[in-house]
Amino acid sequence: MTANTLPILALTMGDAAGVGPEIIVKALGRADVRGWCRPLVVGDAAILRDNLRFWNGPNAPRLVQVDAPDAVGVDPDAIYLFQPGAPLAGIVPGQLSAEAGRGAVEFVMAAIKLAERGQVAGIVTAPLNKEAMHRAGYSYPGHTELLAEQFGVSTYSLVLAARGQFVFHVTTHVSLRDAIDLITFERVLGQIRLAHFLAQALDQPEATIAVAGLNPHAGEGGLFGREEIEIIGPAVVQAQQEGIPAVGPLPADVLFPRAAAGRYKFVIALYHDQGHVVFKTLFFDEGVNVTVGLPVIRTSVDHGTAFDIAGHGIAREESLVEAIKLAARLGPKWGQICAKANLTL
Amino acid sequence: MTANTLPILALTMGDAAGVGPEIIVKALGRADVRGWCRPLVVGDAAILRDNLRFWNGPNAPRLVQVDAPDAVGVDPDAIYLFQPGAPLAGIVPGQLSAEAGRGAVEFVMAAIKLAERGQVAGIVTAPLNKEAMHRAGYSYPGHTELLAEQFGVSTYSLVLAARGQFVFHVTTHVSLRDAIDLITFERVLGQIRLAHFLAQALDQPEATIAVAGLNPHAGEGGLFGREEIEIIGPAVVQAQQEGIPAVGPLPADVLFPRAAAGRYKFVIALYHDQGHVVFKTLFFDEGVNVTVGLPVIRTSVDHGTAFDIAGHGIAREESLVEAIKLAARLGPKWGQICAKANLTL
Repeated sequence: MTANTLPILALTMGDAAGVGPEIIVKALGRADVRGWCRPLVVGDAAILRDNLRFWNGPNAPRLVQVDAPDAVGVDPDAIYLFQPGAPLAGIVPGQLSAEAGRGAVEFVMAAIKLAERGQVAGIVTAPLNKEAMHRAGYSYPGHTELLAEQFGVSTYSLVLAARGQFVFHVTTHVSLRDAIDLITFERVLGQIRLAHFLAQALDQPEATIAVAGLNPHAGEGGLFGREEIEIIGPAVVQAQQEGIPAVGPLPADVLFPRAAAGRYKFVIALYHDQGHVVFKTLFFDEGVNVTVGLPVIRTSVDHGTAFDIAGHGIAREESLVEAIKLAARLGPKWGQICAKANLTL
Repeated sequence: MTANTLPILALTMGDAAGVGPEIIVKALGRADVRGWCRPLVVGDAAILRDNLRFWNGPNAPRLVQVDAPDAVGVDPDAIYLFQPGAPLAGIVPGQLSAEAGRGAVEFVMAAIKLAERGQVAGIVTAPLNKEAMHRAGYSYPGHTELLAEQFGVSTYSLVLAARGQFVFHVTTHVSLRDAIDLITFERVLGQIRLAHFLAQALDQPEATIAVAGLNPHAGEGGLFGREEIEIIGPAVVQAQQEGIPAVGPLPADVLFPRAAAGRYKFVIALYHDQGHVVFKTLFFDEGVNVTVGLPVIRTSVDHGTAFDIAGHGIAREESLVEAIKLAARLGPKWGQICAKANLTL
């Protein structure tokens, strides 16, 4: 690919009082990132300008404000910025504010519009702060739910990705009690299909989709719970009948050590912590969130706004870099893949 | 310590059709093991003799059957054996049988008697097979419950140990739904106290006891469940008021990465998989089970009978060796520690 055919990615700034602006500036100073895509920051100009002090590229950076993605160029020293809405006022690094919450939502909304018009090949999001967003009058539990609602999608997954491995979640931000109630045949099957869809997208249609059990020892034959027998097992069988190479339910303490050893690349976790604990332990800085099920690829850093270190210049950009890499890889063929997988998106 | 003052440990053979006999023979051929303790195998003579082909010590092994632990010597080429009950008949490696189940339970019962009489300083158990045990007419969910009942103990913990780190479990072999119901103030507090007790036993009375949350993000301030606010948090506060350096509840996907990085050595998990998944992923071969709360130390391998490889000579003894090491270290001072910790055992 020549530089000006590289996919354009929207990078939303997230909460302006968090580490988002800093890690964006740090990531865009890297030559590898510039070799994968043409990044377009969707955020606030004054905040971004203030964060240029964290630039670590070879030459001095320039901030180039554009009105539309087709104006995004290939100058490695330029940070191309699209600013939707009114400029942010009174932002203090590390301080929770409705103003920063408003901005974070507006940036994502704007990126969605660009994606819907086909003007960007994917969306990469820096972290937002839930409470700031709530103070701004938006009640979404998080980024993912905001995106799903805006795109009108009900079957989607928060996927954790690192080193070519992907962990899907049947449930996410609900209590563990509620999560158990939400584990249904349809939801488990839906996640297996999404995982297979992603495997196809990565040219690994034969990759095993490994499904975790809910209970200790995957229920030990019904002794410690029957969800494996009544819900999860039948969903795996149905997936197999559809030609998907799914296995399980496997005891989680058998499945994840095997996955860590490289045996499974695509894993279905049933609840938030089942996937997140081992993933964050193994891949602390490298993890990336991917939302699978949207008509456009969306990747995200695997950490929060880190208010405690915002503005100090010590935030690490690795997770954002990985998120950009994955979006650049999958973005251009995402639509075609969705059609192939015959998903009703 | 001179050789004949080394603590005597009872090594129960477990299910004779599993890998237990093989890994015992392999472990006892090692000079490091002989430097820590005087091992006494509690098991079946014919089975052990058959497994002498897996011996890897420098000289040929001798099987020495004894009637009582005080006859255990220090010959590194001798395997000292105490055989309770009738010899096993018709055992085939890898084959489930009531006969092997009977033996496995009898070996543990005999080891408990030796411990109660103060004739051994600790018990190290090779794996038994639950179904074989059930076929033999014993309905215990596992080793731990058998030991707890025989010792008449109700507050105890299945602890996973590796590299100086210990993970306690508030609940173990029940469905996840039932586990949530079993998470009470008393149980959480009981585990924190047991962890502090073990920390004292290891001469680390100041070690932080880190308590995990149940829900995603430890409930996110009550948004995703209230157990952290109503149960777990108050138990941590009570422990702190007792002078125990406890922290939490912490989101599990924050706590475990920190523990893996060495920040916490003593961790309280709320349910089986919360502790087991990350532990087995990180410490696959090295993990050891410790039962804390019994009047005698009991350690165990962190794997099952592995019927699929039994008799093939490819089972690895590392976990058993670690179990022996920990029992030898803590066994001699266990009683004194129990008294110090003022536990009603």
